[in-house]
Amino acid sequence: MSTNAALPLASASSTPAGQPWRIGLIGFGCVGQGLYTILEQQPASGFTVARIAVKTAGKVRPLPAGRFELDAGALLADDSLDVLVEVIDDPEAAFQLVAEALRRGRRVVTANKAMLACHLPELVRLQREGRGTLLYEAAVCGSIPVIRTLDAYFGGEPLRQLTGILNGSSNYVLTRMGEAGSEYSPALTEAQSQGFAETDPALDMAAFDPRSKAVLLAAHAYGTFLRPEQVLNLGIEGITAVDIAFAASQGQKIKVVAGLQRLPDGRVTALVTPQLVGPESPLYTVDHEFNGVVIEADFAGEQFLRGRGAGGHPTGSAVLADLAALRQGFAYQYPKTAEAPAYASDLEVEIYLRTDEDRLIDLLDFSEISEEADEDEYVVGYVALENLIRHRDTLRTYGAFVVRTGRLRPISVATLLEEVSA
Amino acid sequence: MSTNAALPLASASSTPAGQPWRIGLIGFGCVGQGLYTILEQQPASGFTVARIAVKTAGKVRPLPAGRFELDAGALLADDSLDVLVEVIDDPEAAFQLVAEALRRGRRVVTANKAMLACHLPELVRLQREGRGTLLYEAAVCGSIPVIRTLDAYFGGEPLRQLTGILNGSSNYVLTRMGEAGSEYSPALTEAQSQGFAETDPALDMAAFDPRSKAVLLAAHAYGTFLRPEQVLNLGIEGITAVDIAFAASQGQKIKVVAGLQRLPDGRVTALVTPQLVGPESPLYTVDHEFNGVVIEADFAGEQFLRGRGAGGHPTGSAVLADLAALRQGFAYQYPKTAEAPAYASDLEVEIYLRTDEDRLIDLLDFSEISEEADEDEYVVGYVALENLIRHRDTLRTYGAFVVRTGRLRPISVATLLEEVSA
Repeated sequence: MSTNAALPLASASSTPAGQPWRIGLIGFGCVGQGLYTILEQQPASGFTVARIAVKTAGKVRPLPAGRFELDAGALLADDSLDVLVEVIDDPEAAFQLVAEALRRGRRVVTANKAMLACHLPELVRLQREGRGTLLYEAAVCGSIPVIRTLDAYFGGEPLRQLTGILNGSSNYVLTRMGEAGSEYSPALTEAQSQGFAETDPALDMAAFDPRSKAVLLAAHAYGTFLRPEQVLNLGIEGITAVDIAFAASQGQKIKVVAGLQRLPDGRVTALVTPQLVGPESPLYTVDHEFNGVVIEADFAGEQFLRGRGAGGHPTGSAVLADLAALRQGFAYQYPKTAEAPAYASDLEVEIYLRTDEDRLIDLLDFSEISEEADEDEYVVGYVALENLIRHRDTLRTYGAFVVRTGRLRPISVATLLEEVSA
Repeated sequence: MSTNAALPLASASSTPAGQPWRIGLIGFGCVGQGLYTILEQQPASGFTVARIAVKTAGKVRPLPAGRFELDAGALLADDSLDVLVEVIDDPEAAFQLVAEALRRGRRVVTANKAMLACHLPELVRLQREGRGTLLYEAAVCGSIPVIRTLDAYFGGEPLRQLTGILNGSSNYVLTRMGEAGSEYSPALTEAQSQGFAETDPALDMAAFDPRSKAVLLAAHAYGTFLRPEQVLNLGIEGITAVDIAFAASQGQKIKVVAGLQRLPDGRVTALVTPQLVGPESPLYTVDHEFNGVVIEADFAGEQFLRGRGAGGHPTGSAVLADLAALRQGFAYQYPKTAEAPAYASDLEVEIYLRTDEDRLIDLLDFSEISEEADEDEYVVGYVALENLIRHRDTLRTYGAFVVRTGRLRPISVATLLEEVSA
């Protein structure tokens, strides 16, 4: 909680009231086309796409070639545009464009979570210096208004915990494996053919994408800026039908869950892992390409939001909502940054690890093993969060599959003694 | 959709930036005390309760008597107060206070849904004339940010449908009847002892309260201002354990559901009735004192929000969120009022009616009866929505219990012919 000075509201537009705002659209992939289609279908939306910049000339696109230009910089320099919408793939190129646009005092909407997760402190600094306004609701949970709910609605209220299914692609794969009893590969192929997974699925399936979103949520929910690599991300590339069936036999589903949590000492932690989710959790009902977030607030209690997390129309809808918000002068306040808690990773987490490589078990250095089944090649026990962070790439390389099965706890006394004597 | 000119943003405060805003609190019941406690526990919230006006002197209250005064008008006139929070019971007195405060250009937060539902057009007019700013998130669904989500997030997007469980008291009674197999009266007594139902439960149990909330939702979701009496409200006072058991045997729950819907001809309708809800609906998971809203948007698809709908802390939390929003210059835009669709009630709805009074069946003039069981004293069939509206008090007086069992449909040809020949 803080009373730090509010960010400046977005400046008034040069466009007269009642006139549509002119959009400079940078990028024309899934989200850009989704936004374009929505605006086409709503002539009275109050917005019109004035210029479109793309990277590659000559590509087949659903609009005449004359609608496209190749120099995004020209859009940044065009003061007749009321707002810029950046929806390109490349995070570094996106950052250069967005940062430059903010330096020029422009209003910008982006959906690029990887870019935001890496550069948020810098982008907030530019805004605090009065240089432009940046909104990015579409970057997290597609159509769900979770960023503005955290920033503007729960900005004054401490949060105990936030858990969420933030990646529609992996959630679609997990749901289809559960419904069809199929293995990972055919479920992934189906997700790709349905348009719910990228041709290169690693960002989604190895949980890099939901990790970026967890970083953004942490900034608005707690005021804490995390570097993406600080946050544990474990994915589902090693999952098999046996894992799903085992969870189902316990009445549970396996979901990739981002967990942000305030610890008893006031610090916060964040991790993204496959997790057992039972019917008592609202996240149990988040299936297919849907996303969901459970916010546990000190006074409001439990809040649950669920909506479509992927697709051009839902994401385009979120961009349109940001455009409307900019027009009303809305800006994120990052209300909790002045008293942001520190990040904690000196914790232990209970996991289920399935691997045929015994040395991975040694590598993780379990502090407590409660179950070990040689023939099924799995072990259940407590392991230091930092060991998982350190060895996540190795786990992935060797096809191990990890599910978080329990709560976080402080580093155990045994481990501490070991560290001291080491 | 419209591009009507935006409402003016709230004017800047006379209180310097960084200084806490001074609240004039009018009313010190459940919500007022909830807000007070939250602010006490958060000294850095940026808000302080400067003055408190109450109606009755000498009542036992958790603060010293010297903290209270009896003339709310004096708070309206005190320009050192940055914002007024109106949380009294009496709708007419509340309207006089809020309208006068707006005429004086004040910022006001209220939680009084009955007052708002009756006077919203006038209160919007005052704001459009530049006279003050009014927020009321706490009036609908307690802690769920549904009004601002509709107004500011879905303000640019057409909505197909909105359904919601808007009353925590009746939902608590229905949930406990289902869990405990108990009758209505003991479940109601339990709800009252838990603080989830008023001593006079009629407003909640006869669905007057969720009807007020449906009126507010219609204004923000569709831009249509309804008079509360236009909207059908049927409650649960006539329910028995047999009804609950019958629904359960079908895998369903009975919930009081507000349904707002865009019809194929563009008009909208709204009704609040007990309804069969199956596991395929998100509302099936909304139990006890929780509220939930499903928004079906043309582009974003299905959105589901669930949170606590009652209690001093959740509601106080919503008031605090409104205070923070006012401080950031936020105001509702009522973005869809310029092209608001007309209200439609020339529809038929399929219902289950249980009554031992045959003449009620005659009175409702079913256009089609699909099932009639004399010994169990119920009938299932289609009836004109307008007949239900016309005879709702009679149904209530004679202890009839009505459940909506199906979709709305246009008035049947048979009924139209009958009307023409009448």
